[in-house]
Amino acid sequence: MPLRDYQTEIDDWLQNYKQPYWTPLSQLARLVEEVGELSRAYNHKYGEKIKKDSEAPDDIEGEMGDVLFGLICMANDEGLDLDRAIQGAISKAKTRDKDRFEKK
Amino acid sequence: MPLRDYQTEIDDWLQNYKQPYWTPLSQLARLVEEVGELSRAYNHKYGEKIKKDSEAPDDIEGEMGDVLFGLICMANDEGLDLDRAIQGAISKAKTRDKDRFEKK
Amino acid sequence: MPLRDYQTEIDDWLQNYKQPYWTPLSQLARLVEEVGELSRAYNHKYGEKIKKDSEAPDDIEGEMGDVLFGLICMANDEGLDLDRAIQGAISKAKTRDKDRFEKK
Amino acid sequence: MPLRDYQTEIDDWLQNYKQPYWTPLSQLARLVEEVGELSRAYNHKYGEKIKKDSEAPDDIEGEMGDVLFGLICMANDEGLDLDRAIQGAISKAKTRDKDRFEKK
Repeated sequence: MPLRDYQTEIDDWLQNYKQPYWTPLSQLARLVEEVGELSRAYNHKYGEKIKKDSEAPDDIEGEMGDVLFGLICMANDEGLDLDRAIQGAISKAKTRDKDRFEKK
Repeated sequence: MPLRDYQTEIDDWLQNYKQPYWTPLSQLARLVEEVGELSRAYNHKYGEKIKKDSEAPDDIEGEMGDVLFGLICMANDEGLDLDRAIQGAISKAKTRDKDRFEKK
Repeated sequence: MPLRDYQTEIDDWLQNYKQPYWTPLSQLARLVEEVGELSRAYNHKYGEKIKKDSEAPDDIEGEMGDVLFGLICMANDEGLDLDRAIQGAISKAKTRDKDRFEKK
Repeated sequence: MPLRDYQTEIDDWLQNYKQPYWTPLSQLARLVEEVGELSRAYNHKYGEKIKKDSEAPDDIEGEMGDVLFGLICMANDEGLDLDRAIQGAISKAKTRDKDRFEKK
């Protein structure tokens, strides 16, 4: 499904609520929380952090989904199109940064 | 374009390089850096931070694109499908969290 | 107690372990996780996030302590003196940034 | 200098301004921005990120100072004592977590 359709699906759903979108800095804080949870999962898998017995198994896919969900909400609230945003980032990687790393 | 196609396009491009993907914790650090730049842009727009004269105008769309680009690289390197990830997050919002906020 | 003494106390304690300090990017990931928990606590207190019934009460002091603990470990491992670091930041606020905000 | 004295010095200075402390979520966003800059510096030093020619040399001590400065502002605004906070974190490391890692 295209990114734009996810943006629409989430917006349609959130319109059922009195306050569809939190204030921007509150949404940002949520994104940071989700990035923190992704960090914990990465640290368990790739770093030296040892999971506590009481902790649920990590779910990197789930944490990435939460980060992306938060980002989509922020883009919706800003009226921004994430397809354009990612196309811009890809285009930057292929032009400005194309010689920054060693080629095969 | 579907998320999966962005994942493929980025992977195809990165395969031109000797080390297509950084090590996982290095990719995570890059994501955190991009989230930091998005935070600065939000703080200029919605918080009390005043832009320095020397700073370029903020570009929230661009910062979101960079965050998403970093996330796609991480998902590619993990062999994860972001379509599944975001569908899982949407489904969680519509079930587990559906009564967490006040409806219209 | 001076910051330097906290740095020493933590280092003395960590020297009891086989690997006193995690690798740097793993320490960074831990710091990000702690900042994420502080974000959640702030979002509950100041944002629109509603605490789940299953969540423990927030403890902003505790989260700040965890962030600071992580930062001290990183400084120790880098051989850096946080007293110098904070004095530098204070001095920057009092000189470079002194006219950036409206005075009383 | 004790942490408490840094808290006082920063508060004394900020009282010269009309709005000594930004709103809490704006302060949090600033902290995240600073953690992002520390991440970039770590990624240059320990990860695979290659510095652009246009970038200033990294200054890990400076970035740590900025993170700590942001944290002190947040603690001041919350009326929290960072000495208590760090002592709590140290005490947790020495009790709850003391057997979590392998001893020498």
